[in-house]
Amino acid sequence: MGNDKYPSKLLESAVEEFSKLPGIGRKTALRLVLHLLRQDQSEVEAFGNAVIQLKKEIKHCTVCHNISDTEVCSICSSPGRTSSAICVVESIRDVMSIENTHQFNGQYHVLGGVISPMDGIGPNELEIDSLVERVRENDTAEVILALSTTMEGDTTNFYIYKKLKNIEVRVTTIARGVSVGGELEYTDELTLGRSIVNRVTYNDTLSQ
Amino acid sequence: MGNDKYPSKLLESAVEEFSKLPGIGRKTALRLVLHLLRQDQSEVEAFGNAVIQLKKEIKHCTVCHNISDTEVCSICSSPGRTSSAICVVESIRDVMSIENTHQFNGQYHVLGGVISPMDGIGPNELEIDSLVERVRENDTAEVILALSTTMEGDTTNFYIYKKLKNIEVRVTTIARGVSVGGELEYTDELTLGRSIVNRVTYNDTLSQ
Repeated sequence: MGNDKYPSKLLESAVEEFSKLPGIGRKTALRLVLHLLRQDQSEVEAFGNAVIQLKKEIKHCTVCHNISDTEVCSICSSPGRTSSAICVVESIRDVMSIENTHQFNGQYHVLGGVISPMDGIGPNELEIDSLVERVRENDTAEVILALSTTMEGDTTNFYIYKKLKNIEVRVTTIARGVSVGGELEYTDELTLGRSIVNRVTYNDTLSQ
Repeated sequence: MGNDKYPSKLLESAVEEFSKLPGIGRKTALRLVLHLLRQDQSEVEAFGNAVIQLKKEIKHCTVCHNISDTEVCSICSSPGRTSSAICVVESIRDVMSIENTHQFNGQYHVLGGVISPMDGIGPNELEIDSLVERVRENDTAEVILALSTTMEGDTTNFYIYKKLKNIEVRVTTIARGVSVGGELEYTDELTLGRSIVNRVTYNDTLSQ
């Protein structure tokens, strides 16, 4: 579609902007733009302004580095949440995923990625020093590592673990195992192996 | 994902705007918005403004009703194109598809849809009267109907055909048949049937 002749430069540049987005090709971009063209002018302006406003006014929480409208985000400033457990994640999407489970009442720390020398991301590009400082200065009892189980995630886990070694804090990672409802024969060997090694004592609450 | 708690109202409204687009759910919308957040402010503004500008300044060609930056579009005003053949299509995307084939050197007429009583679209909602007027006032030799082969498309074809009946103009439709490279056993019966009824005399140029 690279040689497409658009009947309008305005249309072409809008399609071009949309096709810069991940997973959006030129055909999809054209479909989206033509959809917007059919909407009222006020709606199209609302769309464009929401995007511009977002970039201009968004903040990052000074405590956990999650996206926020305020200096300190709603999770970090919530009196109902305990500051003694900090869950370390890569991105804001992970925060939202864990929040959706309603199983965690502590706070978060958003690293902004994982250590990946291939992509030029070292520890200094991530919010690791601020995590260590945060753990040291507060009465943090537990740091829960919830990063990807990739080589980069494992490297980052180990790096953080070493940095926290001299501080009195329990370091845990989220459980890996067969998914709830998952069948053993369709589970990959690594996961199944981990689920046996890290088996837990059976009790009534587990089957709920 | 409807109950997602976004860490920021600005983020939420941007995600909401994106998820209004066809085929974009909330998860994809969030992915796109977070991608934009990682870009420079100038790029995000270029994105937002391209969309707003498009809606504000786009015109429709007064002759063929295609999208255009000028009063008369580049195809209608091109001296190299014949005005004696008008290809009738539903939308601007069809114009672009036919232009990509480089097989048509005439002009277009964009109806803006097809007659569809179910969706409240009658002949008056479409650019049919302007087509008839255009054919009558110019020395149009041929009107090529290139609408969808749906019930609505067929209805529209027939309606236009009746409207043009009293004007001296040849009305044709694009050929339907087995696609080039297509295998007979995988072609649907209707298409295969039409390809036999509308068979053409074999000559050397067809196999090129």
